[in-house]
Amino acid sequence: RLAAWLDAGRANDQRNQQLHALVLRVLAAHGRPAQVAEVCAGLREVFGIPWVYLTESGIDIDAWSTLVHDWTTPGCGPVAESQQARLSELAGHAIGSVAWVPVALGETGYALLFLGSEDETRFPLGTGTHYLQQVGEMLQTLLAD
Amino acid sequence: RLAAWLDAGRANDQRNQQLHALVLRVLAAHGRPAQVAEVCAGLREVFGIPWVYLTESGIDIDAWSTLVHDWTTPGCGPVAESQQARLSELAGHAIGSVAWVPVALGETGYALLFLGSEDETRFPLGTGTHYLQQVGEMLQTLLAD
Repeated sequence: RLAAWLDAGRANDQRNQQLHALVLRVLAAHGRPAQVAEVCAGLREVFGIPWVYLTESGIDIDAWSTLVHDWTTPGCGPVAESQQARLSELAGHAIGSVAWVPVALGETGYALLFLGSEDETRFPLGTGTHYLQQVGEMLQTLLAD
Repeated sequence: RLAAWLDAGRANDQRNQQLHALVLRVLAAHGRPAQVAEVCAGLREVFGIPWVYLTESGIDIDAWSTLVHDWTTPGCGPVAESQQARLSELAGHAIGSVAWVPVALGETGYALLFLGSEDETRFPLGTGTHYLQQVGEMLQTLLAD
């Protein structure tokens, strides 16, 4: 049990280091579009997430409504068969598991960040999504104006 | 020993939460001067540090040369009697302990961030300064251009 705690602590430290590296990339960028692009590029390159997709349009979000049940908190999980086609189309390759991060904008609007991997176990159901919430809050700040 | 680990873990989590709140403040600001000002304001208001002083001028840095022996890493410690007068003058009140964060700029330049408190035990000698290093890297990024 102690070993599990230490492992969790190490994973947590690594996440925080990665988040810090992401923050530095965003701070180095000038202007909102470049900063938002750095969040996505940092998730790809620092966190090693193969597919990173940010949508501010309602059209694409509709396609996710069967996947995302709670629009206020991030979540993770393997991809259902019915969602495979649309996800693969967007990603350009098969997606085995995804994480999603809702980003509230204004009174009723929202953006949605999707992270995906071919690996079905990369974003397991019910994993800790604390860092995703922090990334979501960064995006919310950047997209607010 | 386990209790000490848990305490350290909790303190670490709190630091990371505070650092995240600081990052959001900086991201909300527009332009380098406002972003740098938010780093300092966030250290005051989020971390509760009474005195936050950032200098990019060599003149003031000379006055610290007896305090800061290593110009590459952050440090902490109680204030020596010989440093009291200058510190109190700058802060407008007595300073019992300080932390300092050197920020390398260009090839030979540097800025220096000072954090101070009347409390002699607030920044004890040899404490973990990991979050200060992260704040220093944020400032380095913001002051680089």
